[in-house]
Amino acid sequence: MKDRNSMDATMKSVNETIDLLLNHRSIRKFTDQPLMPEQVNMIVAAGQAASTSSNIQAYSVIAVMKEELKKELARLSGNQAYVHDCPVFLVWCADLSRLKAAAEKHQPGQETYEGTMEHLIVATVDTALAAQNAAIAAESLGLGIVYIGGIRNNIAEVADLLGLPELVYPLFGMCMGYPDQQPDLRPRLPQEAVLHWNGYDASASDKQVERYDEIMSAYLRERTGGAKDTPWSELMADKLAQPSRLHMGQFLRERGFATR
Amino acid sequence: MKDRNSMDATMKSVNETIDLLLNHRSIRKFTDQPLMPEQVNMIVAAGQAASTSSNIQAYSVIAVMKEELKKELARLSGNQAYVHDCPVFLVWCADLSRLKAAAEKHQPGQETYEGTMEHLIVATVDTALAAQNAAIAAESLGLGIVYIGGIRNNIAEVADLLGLPELVYPLFGMCMGYPDQQPDLRPRLPQEAVLHWNGYDASASDKQVERYDEIMSAYLRERTGGAKDTPWSELMADKLAQPSRLHMGQFLRERGFATR
Repeated sequence: MKDRNSMDATMKSVNETIDLLLNHRSIRKFTDQPLMPEQVNMIVAAGQAASTSSNIQAYSVIAVMKEELKKELARLSGNQAYVHDCPVFLVWCADLSRLKAAAEKHQPGQETYEGTMEHLIVATVDTALAAQNAAIAAESLGLGIVYIGGIRNNIAEVADLLGLPELVYPLFGMCMGYPDQQPDLRPRLPQEAVLHWNGYDASASDKQVERYDEIMSAYLRERTGGAKDTPWSELMADKLAQPSRLHMGQFLRERGFATR
Repeated sequence: MKDRNSMDATMKSVNETIDLLLNHRSIRKFTDQPLMPEQVNMIVAAGQAASTSSNIQAYSVIAVMKEELKKELARLSGNQAYVHDCPVFLVWCADLSRLKAAAEKHQPGQETYEGTMEHLIVATVDTALAAQNAAIAAESLGLGIVYIGGIRNNIAEVADLLGLPELVYPLFGMCMGYPDQQPDLRPRLPQEAVLHWNGYDASASDKQVERYDEIMSAYLRERTGGAKDTPWSELMADKLAQPSRLHMGQFLRERGFATR
């Protein structure tokens, strides 16, 4: 096992599950081997077993296997070919529509609070926890995945294409299939930048980011034969300076989320 | 292994990881056995290995082990005793402050977009994916966890108590320790309510929710000796009719999130 971080280099193999977690890499190239619907059933069952806030289970997932549909979603996601090429493309959606239907059934006319920021966050977290469980289940079966935030590029078109009703929004996609590549593990931030004890220590962060800048520059240099070595913090600065999906707030409000 | 859903009842044991995922239950009672900081390091390393949007790693986690601090957080989370009683309480925070610092370093004066709904969602998802990886790693080590959304009850006080700067918000807590209980697995929605093929099928949902109402009523009746049997959809209707954490939108905007 090639280790992810310098910190991990001291770790011995602990158990199958932790080894699997530490070995995650995003897969963007898949073999032609198809996935059976039963495999998707099992993977989604593992997703459903994740924690959910007060058991509200505020998510749905669309498994896309139709060629034409995958092709269209690839186009809408910024022309990412692997969205089309993967055997199954899962679209994970935050979904408060079941709760709203329950309220209309049992308490018609009663004021309800699905349109709060709190409920947007709860539904978004529920969706992410289920999706991550599914990702791990898939990887434990020898499959590979990559999350696709690009489905938010044209989120209204994606929602319409998949027939999403009010109070359902596509959070991210997930390509899934048998890996046809084995990318290097990308180092993460030194743990000292991320983990704090008994209180937030902002002073630790700057020094650790400098350390990480060096680690990532060296990593990029090695991988690109010297062609690239932009430090992480510079990449992040560039990223934050770019307007990205400025339509999200308005789109969510139009679909009934975070209206108050 | 007691199976989670009727659907799962047909599943044979597949592998260690999927069995672990399907057997998740939230743990709210812990033995006195302490956790070592090195265990927390390993669990957070597994969290850091999760997918992250464009490698931004927009989260931090505060490991709380000090008695007084756990006690105060328990009080602020709606007097949930296990927040105090667990050996380690993790507070998972969405964190865009490292990105903002990078932008100020490399591009001072440049307009930046950390205050968009898109960035709130990206940071929230990054945090949830890391936390769920950590939860699974912990469970694979024989530990138990429960997510604590209650830290958002008094989110400003929690943020101040932990010294969180601008652009960092506490998303949820997580109690962690050695389980001193083995709760029943709670059935989830029938998979047909949650998983759709090639497009959202709203018509499936109503029928499946009715099925689930019966399953959950029977489950509650059995567990409470007949004292409780409220159907799930009725519990959800009640939940949606209650104003819950209406301060979240304003709190987030005050901390620099979703201001536009």
